[in-house]
Amino acid sequence: MSVDINCDMGESFGLYKMGDDEGIMPFITQANVACGFHGSDPNHMRSTVELAKRHDVRVGAHVSLPDLPGFGRREMKIERGEMANIIIYQIGALNGFLRVAGMGLSHIKPHGALYGMAARERHIADAVADAAQAFGVPILGLAGTLHEEVFGERGLEFQAEFFADLDYADDGRLIITREHEAVEPSVAAERAINAVRDGVNVTVGGKRLPVRAETICVHSDTPNAVAIAKAVRDALSTLKAA
Amino acid sequence: MSVDINCDMGESFGLYKMGDDEGIMPFITQANVACGFHGSDPNHMRSTVELAKRHDVRVGAHVSLPDLPGFGRREMKIERGEMANIIIYQIGALNGFLRVAGMGLSHIKPHGALYGMAARERHIADAVADAAQAFGVPILGLAGTLHEEVFGERGLEFQAEFFADLDYADDGRLIITREHEAVEPSVAAERAINAVRDGVNVTVGGKRLPVRAETICVHSDTPNAVAIAKAVRDALSTLKAA
Amino acid sequence: MSVDINCDMGESFGLYKMGDDEGIMPFITQANVACGFHGSDPNHMRSTVELAKRHDVRVGAHVSLPDLPGFGRREMKIERGEMANIIIYQIGALNGFLRVAGMGLSHIKPHGALYGMAARERHIADAVADAAQAFGVPILGLAGTLHEEVFGERGLEFQAEFFADLDYADDGRLIITREHEAVEPSVAAERAINAVRDGVNVTVGGKRLPVRAETICVHSDTPNAVAIAKAVRDALSTLKAA
Amino acid sequence: MSVDINCDMGESFGLYKMGDDEGIMPFITQANVACGFHGSDPNHMRSTVELAKRHDVRVGAHVSLPDLPGFGRREMKIERGEMANIIIYQIGALNGFLRVAGMGLSHIKPHGALYGMAARERHIADAVADAAQAFGVPILGLAGTLHEEVFGERGLEFQAEFFADLDYADDGRLIITREHEAVEPSVAAERAINAVRDGVNVTVGGKRLPVRAETICVHSDTPNAVAIAKAVRDALSTLKAA
Repeated sequence: MSVDINCDMGESFGLYKMGDDEGIMPFITQANVACGFHGSDPNHMRSTVELAKRHDVRVGAHVSLPDLPGFGRREMKIERGEMANIIIYQIGALNGFLRVAGMGLSHIKPHGALYGMAARERHIADAVADAAQAFGVPILGLAGTLHEEVFGERGLEFQAEFFADLDYADDGRLIITREHEAVEPSVAAERAINAVRDGVNVTVGGKRLPVRAETICVHSDTPNAVAIAKAVRDALSTLKAA
Repeated sequence: MSVDINCDMGESFGLYKMGDDEGIMPFITQANVACGFHGSDPNHMRSTVELAKRHDVRVGAHVSLPDLPGFGRREMKIERGEMANIIIYQIGALNGFLRVAGMGLSHIKPHGALYGMAARERHIADAVADAAQAFGVPILGLAGTLHEEVFGERGLEFQAEFFADLDYADDGRLIITREHEAVEPSVAAERAINAVRDGVNVTVGGKRLPVRAETICVHSDTPNAVAIAKAVRDALSTLKAA
Repeated sequence: MSVDINCDMGESFGLYKMGDDEGIMPFITQANVACGFHGSDPNHMRSTVELAKRHDVRVGAHVSLPDLPGFGRREMKIERGEMANIIIYQIGALNGFLRVAGMGLSHIKPHGALYGMAARERHIADAVADAAQAFGVPILGLAGTLHEEVFGERGLEFQAEFFADLDYADDGRLIITREHEAVEPSVAAERAINAVRDGVNVTVGGKRLPVRAETICVHSDTPNAVAIAKAVRDALSTLKAA
Repeated sequence: MSVDINCDMGESFGLYKMGDDEGIMPFITQANVACGFHGSDPNHMRSTVELAKRHDVRVGAHVSLPDLPGFGRREMKIERGEMANIIIYQIGALNGFLRVAGMGLSHIKPHGALYGMAARERHIADAVADAAQAFGVPILGLAGTLHEEVFGERGLEFQAEFFADLDYADDGRLIITREHEAVEPSVAAERAINAVRDGVNVTVGGKRLPVRAETICVHSDTPNAVAIAKAVRDALSTLKAA
C-alpha cells in the first residue's frame, strides 16, 4: 500500500510570508509549487524547488486562475483555450526552475477556485487536461468528479487526492474557506488512515462515504500545518509497516 | 555571409494590439517573443509561437524587467539573483508554449531597459548569463559592451546585434525612446548593408564607427515596421546572392 | 427633451492605445473614464480628464472588476464588501485627477462584466450602490434590471442607459462581445432616435421592446466610433431642435 | 514640545499579513496607510482607515513606486509627470476610503525607495511636491535633504521625520534594508528622546549629528514593533509631562 503526501508550497510573495515550507517539507513526498498567479514569485519558486530537492521531494505545478489579490480563490468565467494557455504558462515557468535544479516535473494540481471549477465545469476540466497532456504528467484532483471523468475519457493519468485537513459536506463536496483553520493533528491523521486503509471518508454530518485516496493533501497555510503533516506522515508510515 | 534578421514579437496584451506580427513574420529569421513581463500574455505567446512555426522562424525569449505598465522601458535597481530568477521564469513560460508547438528555444534577448542595463552593469550582465547558461542558448546583444565581455569571459555564446531602425549616438550608444518613430525603409536597409558588408555604422553625428552585425533587429512597433523589415530582408538577400 | 451621450474613455494603457478619445470627445456630454482596473493608468487618467475639461464634458468613473489582462470582461465571484471597496478605490483614484483639474465627479458606470453582474446579482448591485451612495452621484445602468430595482429601493439616482452601437437579444438583454464590431453610423443614430423619441428598442430578432433612454452610450473601441458618435449626436440634436 | 509618532500601516495584501496594526495603532498619532502600489488592497485600506478612526489617529497616504512584488523597495527611473500622476492616483484612492469614513487626509509620506529618491533627485522631489500641493497637506520626509529644500523653495509644508528604529550612517543617511530587524525598544526610545529633546542623532559610528524631529517613525514590520511603539510613546509622554 503506497500513498503520497502532497502539500501546497512556495506561496510566499515578495516580503509576504505564507506557510512554514521548511517545517513541512520533511514530511511530504509531493510539493505543489505555486507559479506566481495566486502566490509566489520567481525568487520563492526557485528557493522552494531547491528546498524540495534537498528533501528528495517531487515537484508539481500548483496552477491557478490569474488572481494574485484574491489568492486564486475567486471563481472567474474563462474560456477553455485561454485557461489552457494560462496553465501552460505557469507550468512552463516552474519548469524553468526545475531545469536549473536538474529536476523533472512530477505532476500538476489546480489551485483554489480552479480546483473546484475543474471538478464541475467540463471546459475547465478539458483545459487542465490540455495542459497536462502537453507535459505528460498526472494531475491531482478529486475522485468522482467531472474532472476525473474527463481525464478518464481522454486516457490521462489522474491521482485521486484526499484532504486530511479539510471538512467534507454530506454530499461529498469539499468545504473550502478563504483561510484555513487549525485542525487537530490526530483528527487529520485518523481521516487519512480511514481514507487510505478503509476507503472511507466521514463527512461533517457523520456520513461514511466511500473515497479513493492515492495522495493525501495537507495545507501549508493551516495554522498548525507542520504538526498535521507530521501526524499524517507518521500514521501512514504505521500503515505501511503493518 | 550569413546574417539573421530578428524582430520583437507577440507584444500585444489582452485586447491591446501592438505590432503587425503577421505582416513582419515572413521577412525575419528570429522572433523574440515577449514573455508577459513588459507585454504579451499566455494567449498571445501561444499564437505568436504558432505564427513563427508556420513561417519557419526560430523563437527566442524576449525577457524584461517586471514592468508591464512601463513596457519594460524604465530602469530598476535589482539584484543579480532576483534578476536571474525573473529571466528564468520568463524563459520557462515561453518554453511551455514551444513544447506545445514541438519547437525548441532558439535564443534569448533582453528587452528595453534591461538591454541597456546588461550592456552597462556587470551584475545584470551576469544575471542574464546565469539564465542563458541554464538554457544553453545564445544571447542577442550589443557588441563591444560589458554584456559581450561578460559572456566572453564565461564562454557563453553572444550574437552581435545591429539595429537598422534606431539611431546611434556618436559614442556608439543606442538611442532608445519610449515610442519608436518611423524610419525610411531605404535608410534602414542601407544601415543594414553598411553594417553587414562593411562592418560600419554611421552615427547621428555622421561618424563612421566599426560595428559587428550578426543579426539585424527591426522593431515591430515602429509605425512602418513591415516596410522596414521587407527592405532590410531584400537588401540582405542581394548581398548573399552577390 | 434632454438626453446625454456617454462614452467609455481613457482606456489606453502605457504604450498601448485604445479608442480615439480626441476624435470622440467633441460629440459627447459624459466621459466614463477608466480607473486602472480594466484599462488606463495614472498618465492616461490625467490626460483624459484634461481632455474632457477642454471639451466641457462631465467626467464619471468607469469602474471595473480587477482584471487588466481580461479588460474587465470576465465575470468573477466576489463578495459585496470587497466589490464595494474595489469600486471606492477606483472612484477615489479618479477623484484625485478631478481635484487637480478643478472638476467634480459626475457619475459612476460599471464596466464590462461588472455591468452585467450589477444587472443580475443583488449583492453586486448593492455593492455598486454602496459606492455610489458614498460619493453622492448617479449611476449609469440598464433600465428594467435588478440594478435599477436596487437603486430605486435605496433611493439612489439611476440614469437609464441605451446602447446605440450594440445589439439587443429578443429578451431585451444586451449582447456583449469581447471586441466590439463596426456598426453603420446611421443604424446607431436610428436606434438612438427610436429609443429617445419613441421609447422603442428593436432587437436582433426584430421585436419592438419598450426602452427608457436617458443617456446614449457609444463605445470608443468600436472601429468606426467617431463616425457613430457624430451620427448619434447629430440625430439627437435634430430631435432637440424639433 | 509637541511631536507626532507615525507608523506605516495597512500593508497587508489579500491573505498575506504584514504588521500588527491593531497592536500599534493605540500608540501613534499618524497612520501612513499603504495605497496598493507596494502593499495593501481596497479591503485592507478600508479596514485600516476604520481602525485609525477608532483610535483617533490621523491618516496620511503612504505612496510608493508601482512595485508590488518588490514592496516598493527597488529604485526605478521615472519621469516627474508620471511619478506625480502615480502619487495622485494613490492619494485619491485613499481619499475614497477617508470619505466613506468621514475623515480628511492628514499628510503624505513617500514609501521605500521613493523616500530616498525624493531626498536625492530633484525631479522626484518635485513630483512629490506636485501631488502634495494638489491636496494641500504636509509631507513627511528627511530633514536636510533635497526633498526638504524643494518643499521649502515651493512654500510647501514639510514635517521632519526621525526614524527611531533604523540606524543612520555617519554621513547622516538612513540605512534601509529590505527587511527590518528587531531593535531594543529602550534603544529606540532613547534615540527618540535624543532627537526630540536635544536635537541629536547618534550614528552607527558613534557620531553625534544634529537632527530635527517633528514626527517619530516606528515601522510596523519590525519584529517587535508594538514594543518599540509603546516604548517611544511612553518616553515622549514623559518628555511632555516634564
